Amino acid sequence: MNNPQLTSEYQSFGGKLGFYSHPSSTCNGEMRFAVYQPPQATQQPVPVLYFLSGLTCTEENFMAKSGAQRYAAEYGLMLVAPDTSPRNTGIVGEDDEWDFGTGAGFYVDATEKPWRSHYQMYSYVVQELPALIAANFPIQPEKQGIFGHSMGGHGALVCALRNPQLYKSVSAFAPIVAPMRCPWGQKAFSRYLGTNQETWRAYDASELVQHTQYHSPILIDQGTADKFLAEQLLTEVFEEACMAFKQPLTLRYQDGYDHSYYFIATFIADHIRHHAIALGKI
Amino acid sequence: MNNPQLTSEYQSFGGKLGFYSHPSSTCNGEMRFAVYQPPQATQQPVPVLYFLSGLTCTEENFMAKSGAQRYAAEYGLMLVAPDTSPRNTGIVGEDDEWDFGTGAGFYVDATEKPWRSHYQMYSYVVQELPALIAANFPIQPEKQGIFGHSMGGHGALVCALRNPQLYKSVSAFAPIVAPMRCPWGQKAFSRYLGTNQETWRAYDASELVQHTQYHSPILIDQGTADKFLAEQLLTEVFEEACMAFKQPLTLRYQDGYDHSYYFIATFIADHIRHHAIALGKI
Repeated sequence: MNNPQLTSEYQSFGGKLGFYSHPSSTCNGEMRFAVYQPPQATQQPVPVLYFLSGLTCTEENFMAKSGAQRYAAEYGLMLVAPDTSPRNTGIVGEDDEWDFGTGAGFYVDATEKPWRSHYQMYSYVVQELPALIAANFPIQPEKQGIFGHSMGGHGALVCALRNPQLYKSVSAFAPIVAPMRCPWGQKAFSRYLGTNQETWRAYDASELVQHTQYHSPILIDQGTADKFLAEQLLTEVFEEACMAFKQPLTLRYQDGYDHSYYFIATFIADHIRHHAIALGKI
Repeated sequence: MNNPQLTSEYQSFGGKLGFYSHPSSTCNGEMRFAVYQPPQATQQPVPVLYFLSGLTCTEENFMAKSGAQRYAAEYGLMLVAPDTSPRNTGIVGEDDEWDFGTGAGFYVDATEKPWRSHYQMYSYVVQELPALIAANFPIQPEKQGIFGHSMGGHGALVCALRNPQLYKSVSAFAPIVAPMRCPWGQKAFSRYLGTNQETWRAYDASELVQHTQYHSPILIDQGTADKFLAEQLLTEVFEEACMAFKQPLTLRYQDGYDHSYYFIATFIADHIRHHAIALGKI
């Protein structure tokens, strides 16, 4: 395994924020990610919290706009934010659409040509990246949480529901909870996974929750003024599935909030606390 | 006076953040600014705190990256962030340099052609914008504070030192404190103000502090790893002038911090508290 290369570093809330790149064997090319190391990490290994970003984002948006570092420093959590897809793969058309290809990996392992040669974001997030983090940063590998926004909320829910033993906690901001039923998800899944919709179920939180009990309550914040709510996010589909299959869910509709990072920043403290409790830091 | 036009709005920390444009008589064209209205502003007029941004910034950077809204909401302060210059003025070459022209108004009233027809940022920030805010938002016009970053830290210090009666408090992150002595300032002043350096003194905090006592302590945070410190910011020039002329100054060198918004976000809470005290909210 090659060491990640530091491209820039910033002091932040007494800790340090670094941006890295590394050759990924899973994605067959360079991948980028950001890590915030809280001040406590200079003394001892700390739990690690993964944040998966939404469409068009890079590894930077969350670190620049969410304000999460303040709370990660308070509770002693490492934050890791991967990029949202491989980039510069050479696949024809990878940059043509904002909701597919570059910036839109959807956290699946593609099985269809030409995407399958690089777009293995599920395995990258669940396996390669955590191994890389454990090998290079002072973390407690058995203490992981995961959260995300929009497409990344979908990713976080899927990663946690498929691997409850790997993640002590999961939460999401305005997640895509039923990708099989919304245009963004249908477009991405049909081209990354093919037309057999049976294979899609493994990447749909509202399907997964019917077969897996996650061990602790899932926290979701959803703005009522989010313009994607009715057509793309479909929060109530997940809410009904959780209720039917007795999955504990803390779903909070936040009045007047939209889909932006201003919404995320407003409620980031609550999410970090949710994870800090599960990770034994409160 | 024309009403400002709302271009976008976001719920944030129980209040609302709006981005506006308006025809400016001072700058002879459209100007843009952002306003964060804390939740308290729906009940009663609140104090107002102006933030002046640095080179290349717009009215958005501070609102997206500083995390200030959390504390403005806590203490009940309105935040106003103007753009850093006129834009699209038609002046030949306005977009050619990142440290002069567009995005680099330096908060002066230009006297030289061709800039003087639009680049009147000092009068815009001190007079036109506050009048516009008072006429359109629920603020207490006699309760104003001002702060800023880098070029905007210079702007905040100059506005406050020249108008102590207008601003109850002033602070700055990594300000340009002696523009007459640094390359950024010399370049901007010579072209906006002409070659007679006597006229520059009115826009140089380290000169102004020799003739004006500001009524309360000035707060400055400066990162020790800021790559602009030695050549452009010259913090010690202001420190020495304050000491020589008995101006109370709280200057904090922050170990390892650079010039970025990660630095600002780390210490924004302290700055907002500094202003909230002077504005009677703590």
